[in-house]
Amino acid sequence: MQTVNSNATVIGGGFIGLEMAENLYGLGIDVTIVEASNQVMAPVDYEMALLLNENIRDNGVKLFATDGVDSFVDTSEGIKVKLSSGKTVLSELVILSIGVKPNSKLAADAGLALNEKGGIIVDSHMRTEDESIYAAGDVVEVEDFIFKDKTMVPLAGPANKQGRIVADNIAGLDSTYTGTQGSSVVKVFDLNVATTGANEKALVRRGLVRDKDYTSVILTQNSHAGYYPGAKPMIIKLLFSIDGKKIYGGQIVGKDGVDKRIDILGTAIRFGATVKDLTNLELAYAPPFSSGKDPINMAGFVAENVVNGLVKQAVWNEADTDKESVVLDVREQAELDVFAIDGAVNIPLGQLRKRINELDKNKKYIVLCAIGVRAYNAYRILAQNGFENIKLYPAGVRFYSSTHRNFEEVNEEFVCKY
Amino acid sequence: MQTVNSNATVIGGGFIGLEMAENLYGLGIDVTIVEASNQVMAPVDYEMALLLNENIRDNGVKLFATDGVDSFVDTSEGIKVKLSSGKTVLSELVILSIGVKPNSKLAADAGLALNEKGGIIVDSHMRTEDESIYAAGDVVEVEDFIFKDKTMVPLAGPANKQGRIVADNIAGLDSTYTGTQGSSVVKVFDLNVATTGANEKALVRRGLVRDKDYTSVILTQNSHAGYYPGAKPMIIKLLFSIDGKKIYGGQIVGKDGVDKRIDILGTAIRFGATVKDLTNLELAYAPPFSSGKDPINMAGFVAENVVNGLVKQAVWNEADTDKESVVLDVREQAELDVFAIDGAVNIPLGQLRKRINELDKNKKYIVLCAIGVRAYNAYRILAQNGFENIKLYPAGVRFYSSTHRNFEEVNEEFVCKY
Repeated sequence: MQTVNSNATVIGGGFIGLEMAENLYGLGIDVTIVEASNQVMAPVDYEMALLLNENIRDNGVKLFATDGVDSFVDTSEGIKVKLSSGKTVLSELVILSIGVKPNSKLAADAGLALNEKGGIIVDSHMRTEDESIYAAGDVVEVEDFIFKDKTMVPLAGPANKQGRIVADNIAGLDSTYTGTQGSSVVKVFDLNVATTGANEKALVRRGLVRDKDYTSVILTQNSHAGYYPGAKPMIIKLLFSIDGKKIYGGQIVGKDGVDKRIDILGTAIRFGATVKDLTNLELAYAPPFSSGKDPINMAGFVAENVVNGLVKQAVWNEADTDKESVVLDVREQAELDVFAIDGAVNIPLGQLRKRINELDKNKKYIVLCAIGVRAYNAYRILAQNGFENIKLYPAGVRFYSSTHRNFEEVNEEFVCKY
Repeated sequence: MQTVNSNATVIGGGFIGLEMAENLYGLGIDVTIVEASNQVMAPVDYEMALLLNENIRDNGVKLFATDGVDSFVDTSEGIKVKLSSGKTVLSELVILSIGVKPNSKLAADAGLALNEKGGIIVDSHMRTEDESIYAAGDVVEVEDFIFKDKTMVPLAGPANKQGRIVADNIAGLDSTYTGTQGSSVVKVFDLNVATTGANEKALVRRGLVRDKDYTSVILTQNSHAGYYPGAKPMIIKLLFSIDGKKIYGGQIVGKDGVDKRIDILGTAIRFGATVKDLTNLELAYAPPFSSGKDPINMAGFVAENVVNGLVKQAVWNEADTDKESVVLDVREQAELDVFAIDGAVNIPLGQLRKRINELDKNKKYIVLCAIGVRAYNAYRILAQNGFENIKLYPAGVRFYSSTHRNFEEVNEEFVCKY
């Protein structure tokens, strides 16, 4: 049994848990996060959460995922938190941030209809079964904006809007709520993480199939023009229908400009944007704020390339799960000296045309570079030379290394199912 | 004749001029800006530009507006810049940033059609009259996204998109440009200023009439929740049709979060958003990034109140131009001690109901408070008590004081015509 001494333990790695952990850490307190599921921040997909794991641990916070709490024992030394794995964490403070459930007792006592989770059922005017009683906020069932079925999403933004809608209707104005898309953002140590619409887990849960019903792109973009000081990379994941006509959702992790890009994307999704629409968005550019092609335009361009069949992206761990695949790293030797992938073939992009015969057309290559631009060019060269089984590793080496940082542990603790 | 000694003079107060002035100032150089029109930053309306004037001058930069250059004389002491007003500025460096015009000689020599400004005429595929020649960037005529007529807008974002569209078409993909809406942002000393869509000057130039064809709201909003450190106010101006079904454009000036809000608004406009749509946008909230009701939601709420007839906003100088109007300041005495408006009537909001008989129903009151919330409540109290000639002073005392900071000079130098 491993015993960890710690001053505070946060149970649950969602919004509240991560914000608590960050703030306690900021006060100089040793923090341990315990999360029962295989990832922190359930609203983002697994590979995006891995970026958070890395940063949380780089900040010296312990993180135990796929591990629940068996018991709390109050001892003279502190609270002994016994985990399912057998580990024990000794803490002066334990914070439970394990989700919310509606406190709808008042509504139940009044005989109003509730859903199976206890959420109050309201119509689009936020009116309950009793036409003189309205309800709003985390306690009500809402329409999922993407799929148009019923869901519950406890977020301040929707609650605030619903409050005004209730007031409007009570005061005689006709006002309706148009559904919740789950737009959210949180600051986690050095990173900001944001999401809007459906994530891939939700698509799979609803029976949608990758490469048949939907696909995704993941890309690295700078928060603003690189020639103006302070630009920071962000990783964007965009989920969309195969024909690019529907955007299901997006997730972004980075140090700067993340909240802006998720709001641009969330606004576009609100209006039923297509992938093509993202390429046409006219976003304000000056070097301190963006690039001539904003990250959200770039997400549209990359997704458009996928829709047009110019490129296919691998998923983040495809080189690990598909044992027949070979990573083709088109970076220069100096870059390989810093970080290289075991078993990868290296041909720098500039030499690819003349060394293309070193590659085997019967093999599957996953092409990788630092960011994705050289890999895209390499992909196109291969495609034009008759290679048919090629994929582009998304978002480049930085994303690869971050998601493979503790890969043995990833393999052991986490199983990515979609 | 007034002579000013200065190390650098920037002629023209647009994007480039202001960026040059800021950077030279950052190097410790004394800067004078000379602008021939009555305001800096032509893409924003006059009252929004006044916010910039204040900040430029607070930073110690001299600004002469409504003043052109008569001549430059090279002397042993430097360049003597003689202005139309008779002023002379002596400078070691003079920068001309007086706008752009297309260099379309290559196209003209090839016999391609140009517009009257010399812009190359292209179709939606960016193809010139000669189907094997494409053109893109600042040199081409584009469609105005709001009004669907022809215009020229030199901006990097549209130019970048057009480049990809040209490449697509040359490579056999069918790709079209969908028009330019003039989204732009610039950092001017402590302020960021951004705009998207049409400004009020453009509406008036096209013959649209205030309160018949269009109206506007101006509001003050914080960049994020006030209870999280570092929130900064921004001033938002939103222009929309009387029925709220069309948003013509928006302008924002502030220290933080301006670029994000203009891009949310620009994206909404791209999809033909109504005022109501802005209230429904689900934007990501956490205290470091926004409020439960984002500034763009709030712009929608305030505009919706105008569309629904719950409130009318005054224009920024209505209390000055309408001599019959009376400013009703509903702030507390402690606030008046800091800043008060000559001739205003003061009744704190909490006393308004019992002191309402002190007011004259035949008079026009322009109601003002610090931000706009108390003034809105006061407006509603007055309206419900039979007052018919009421307006709300937009964006509160901060906006009033900034736009009236050098009001004598404003009156003298600048004439606001719309």
